[in-house]
Amino acid sequence: MPDSESNKTSINKLGKIGLIDLITDKSKPVNSSTLSVIGDDAAIIDSGKLLTLVSTDLLLEGIHFNLIYTPLKHLGYKAVIRAISDIYAMNGTPHQILISLGISARFSVEQIEEIYEGIYLACEKYNVDLAGGDTSSSLTGLTIGVTAVGSVEKDKTVKRSGAKPNDLICVTGDFGAAFMGLQLLERERRLFEKEKVTQPDLSGSEYAIGRQLKPEFPAEVLTELRNTDIRPTSMIDISEGLSSDLLQICKLSHTCCRIYYSKIPIDYETSKLAEEFNIDPIIPALNGGEDYELLFTIPLEAAEKIKSIQSVKLIGHMTEQGLGNFLVGDDGSEVKLSAQGWK
Amino acid sequence: MPDSESNKTSINKLGKIGLIDLITDKSKPVNSSTLSVIGDDAAIIDSGKLLTLVSTDLLLEGIHFNLIYTPLKHLGYKAVIRAISDIYAMNGTPHQILISLGISARFSVEQIEEIYEGIYLACEKYNVDLAGGDTSSSLTGLTIGVTAVGSVEKDKTVKRSGAKPNDLICVTGDFGAAFMGLQLLERERRLFEKEKVTQPDLSGSEYAIGRQLKPEFPAEVLTELRNTDIRPTSMIDISEGLSSDLLQICKLSHTCCRIYYSKIPIDYETSKLAEEFNIDPIIPALNGGEDYELLFTIPLEAAEKIKSIQSVKLIGHMTEQGLGNFLVGDDGSEVKLSAQGWK
Repeated sequence: MPDSESNKTSINKLGKIGLIDLITDKSKPVNSSTLSVIGDDAAIIDSGKLLTLVSTDLLLEGIHFNLIYTPLKHLGYKAVIRAISDIYAMNGTPHQILISLGISARFSVEQIEEIYEGIYLACEKYNVDLAGGDTSSSLTGLTIGVTAVGSVEKDKTVKRSGAKPNDLICVTGDFGAAFMGLQLLERERRLFEKEKVTQPDLSGSEYAIGRQLKPEFPAEVLTELRNTDIRPTSMIDISEGLSSDLLQICKLSHTCCRIYYSKIPIDYETSKLAEEFNIDPIIPALNGGEDYELLFTIPLEAAEKIKSIQSVKLIGHMTEQGLGNFLVGDDGSEVKLSAQGWK
Repeated sequence: MPDSESNKTSINKLGKIGLIDLITDKSKPVNSSTLSVIGDDAAIIDSGKLLTLVSTDLLLEGIHFNLIYTPLKHLGYKAVIRAISDIYAMNGTPHQILISLGISARFSVEQIEEIYEGIYLACEKYNVDLAGGDTSSSLTGLTIGVTAVGSVEKDKTVKRSGAKPNDLICVTGDFGAAFMGLQLLERERRLFEKEKVTQPDLSGSEYAIGRQLKPEFPAEVLTELRNTDIRPTSMIDISEGLSSDLLQICKLSHTCCRIYYSKIPIDYETSKLAEEFNIDPIIPALNGGEDYELLFTIPLEAAEKIKSIQSVKLIGHMTEQGLGNFLVGDDGSEVKLSAQGWK
């Protein structure tokens, strides 16, 4: 199928329906609720007695990814993580995703297959079915629209609006690594473009780069919370940034918050990179975004119980509305938390 | 809020969360299954005992719309029609939509509001709730990702794959008008760009232009089919083009088809415009696309019953696999039907 010259197949040659066939062939549902795969007008989902959760996201070239340093397979993987993290953040379980691709003429069929390789890999890891979508041409680079569908028991939904004063603020993982990984990749891109340095210097920063290019989601923490019988009062996935997403919970819950500088989990590699770039590591940790970790609040009474979940850290607590949102330093100094502007 | 100079508010000034607030304020659910509106990670949908249908689409600037002649309000309206038509085409009823916008810096808040005005207008007309979505910045023009969620009784789903030989091929409405409307708008755009003709000559073509810019979907036909107790064996919405979408049904149903030239419904205005552009009106009718009409097949036995639904026309019938797909002329001549290429 590939051209003899370039080993690439033009999408024109395959056509839209051929392209859909190519994608569909690999689609084998694992969830009993998935009653259809790609090919019909809409995905069919048997929701039974559960609530259905649906979330949707766009990934745009030049904004959410730069193809100079983003392998297409990783991009497909990340698109899935991005979509299913929204379902997890409602205490749900993702079951299906639908992917819409806008593809410009410079892409070959093989490249589209690479994207889907990553999509299928993430689907397999997180037990999600590719249940639909669409492809169209694009004049303006690669666009990925991804919709995730999941379910949750009726009384188990966790919204952003349920936090109460005195609730403890919990997070999984660590923060700022994806952002520092991006800074590093961007620096090497500029070096490549300006000085034609073709061998990027990424050694020692594998963790940060991995967090940027191929993030995972701590889905197992939700299971542990259920097993430990802890019901979060509010929850969100960290995509915009710890500060911005926490403030979103505060706003919708009508609370304020205090978090503690020394409690914010930051990986050694993130700190080291931040030093290299002459920035305080707390900046990427609070405002970097794309961490794909969980932020949630629990009642004060659950403070003992939560200690059994090692991957969860307490970073602060909720306060009454009107008291202001603060980052508290080791010396007791207070800095006002602010949401990032329009990115 | 608007700048004193230009009467436009920059999106930077409002911020992402401000923008979401602006959109959310107008969101008042009408469907009891809509348990959340915009603001959380995912839409929450109570599916009860029905099947959930989910479809997703991308609308990309320069491919699916040209802002030179597309009013933003119409664009929002069309995005909803495009998404819900996929739910109707499975014999379902749409209940929720989720909208993701990728917005470049040249857009003002007022322009985004215009898009949502159209979205809410269509939502109101078709009893659909805006239940979620996302906004992000874009380097590459306006991108709209739209996901529709609906439901259907378990035994009422109609897929593309159920047609049988001898089934009758039915359509609603007429074909090619949206395509000819687009040709006209494109011609006037070129005149405007090259010769600075600022007053486009669109008189007498209001129907075709309306079909292009602000399409509707014949949802009432599905109710009439239910009331008349006719269950289509296969169904699809005409978005790619009558020929391409019919061939899709044939392929998935393992049938072939014969449709009749004289039976294809074409509006007088479409024919007149086609003549002006020196093309046979059958070309836009078969391959134009964006008609947002229904194409479905019914068993031969339902031939009498279907006559009671005035807006449905019979255009041909299904044949055994291997017999070829043909457009039959008045003189009995046969032309092979072909799907459009990659657009």
